Amino acid sequence: MMNKPVSAAICLIGDELLSGRTRDINVQQIAGFLGPYGIPVEEVRIVPDVEARIVEAVNQLRERYTYVFTTGGIGPTHDDITADAIAAAFGIGIGKHPEVMAMLQERYDEMGTEFTEARQRMARIPEGASLVENPVSGAPGFQTGNVFTLAGVPSIVQGMLQDIGHRLEKGVPVRSITVRSGGLREGDVAEKLASLSQELEGVSLGSYPWFRSVTDHGVALIARSTDREMLQTAAEQLVALVTEAGRESEVIEGEAS
Amino acid sequence: MMNKPVSAAICLIGDELLSGRTRDINVQQIAGFLGPYGIPVEEVRIVPDVEARIVEAVNQLRERYTYVFTTGGIGPTHDDITADAIAAAFGIGIGKHPEVMAMLQERYDEMGTEFTEARQRMARIPEGASLVENPVSGAPGFQTGNVFTLAGVPSIVQGMLQDIGHRLEKGVPVRSITVRSGGLREGDVAEKLASLSQELEGVSLGSYPWFRSVTDHGVALIARSTDREMLQTAAEQLVALVTEAGRESEVIEGEAS
Repeated sequence: MMNKPVSAAICLIGDELLSGRTRDINVQQIAGFLGPYGIPVEEVRIVPDVEARIVEAVNQLRERYTYVFTTGGIGPTHDDITADAIAAAFGIGIGKHPEVMAMLQERYDEMGTEFTEARQRMARIPEGASLVENPVSGAPGFQTGNVFTLAGVPSIVQGMLQDIGHRLEKGVPVRSITVRSGGLREGDVAEKLASLSQELEGVSLGSYPWFRSVTDHGVALIARSTDREMLQTAAEQLVALVTEAGRESEVIEGEAS
Repeated sequence: MMNKPVSAAICLIGDELLSGRTRDINVQQIAGFLGPYGIPVEEVRIVPDVEARIVEAVNQLRERYTYVFTTGGIGPTHDDITADAIAAAFGIGIGKHPEVMAMLQERYDEMGTEFTEARQRMARIPEGASLVENPVSGAPGFQTGNVFTLAGVPSIVQGMLQDIGHRLEKGVPVRSITVRSGGLREGDVAEKLASLSQELEGVSLGSYPWFRSVTDHGVALIARSTDREMLQTAAEQLVALVTEAGRESEVIEGEAS
């Protein structure tokens, strides 16, 4: 039997995402980062700034997936409760991390800014967690078991991810080829696509329609596989299928999406 | 005791969202639609095109929230399995809905397009579900108990939402006021914000930093409340707090976010 393949889940924390104030970009960013490592994101949850809800989601996800990435809620304000929630989820203590305290003290000294009690909240790290460097704004994220706790601000998430890759167990990267066809409708190719999907072993076929207006619509057919050769075969078949339906197509090779 | 307040959850279905190929906009769209009805979105999940995973998520969410909105997976292709998953979740049958069959038949006749077996998949509706009109592309969504099953394409979701408002139990709309301040750092106001958050009953205060570069960063402080008067008071206090920190601010009144 094969080992359980590596997998990931993302838990986005923040009322602003649920209310629609903020449109998330971190799922895309983290999934795009993990793709080349061969680690697929298999579930995402968005939960509010409520400790019990964060604890519940993190505990369910860390049990089920190889890695969990949380974003948001590690700043200095009263609604930043993620570090405490992670400690609660793992049933471990939390305190001001000496190394982080020293690093932030130095940072604020340089800026001539007071290292207030609120700012010291950013040094609260669950016991035994390892730090995740923040090259953008200083205050670190952290890794507790298989859970990585990152900031919410996308540019900071991007920075923190640079300190995570070397910790990850790699899987086999999934490659994809997209066959886009303007004007095509899913129903034009659905039967043949279903047969093709049965025939092509080790390739997953997806069909993604777009519909912006009556003159701007079409379908993107995507083949995904870890096997380059099978993927090429699939792409040729998809192009043939679109041609048979009397439409033109454009082939786009992607790394992993 | 008060009745349990109305609430909603969203379950986005689709591998393309998890892989990062597609950046979701439906959470924002649905949350924005529900805001004026006083129905807050309290949880979001993104799950893959796998029936067991859809069933599990929908069953957990429909138990916990007043309404559940699913998006994606109701087209004609082999990876469109949401209708079957919803029937499985409710333990009910599914079949081709005569009204939808007739309507789609007419639509395809008009277009001079064959109403293939694959296209007929779009007429598969769980037994007893009521239809949700699709003014954009014809094939309807449906309501099964407290679960609304919508398309994934944003313009179609937008159209379908127009047939949903009249079915919803209304809550009390939450209004918001945003006080934006470029250059402000969260740590400059965190202590006072925490006290204010304690003092202001019935108002929830959030702090949302942005950080695009060393010259373009700041904080948006947001007060949310169902009480307009309290909200005005909160906004004045937030402005005062920013002024005290030696920064300028801009006040933006929002409907609900």
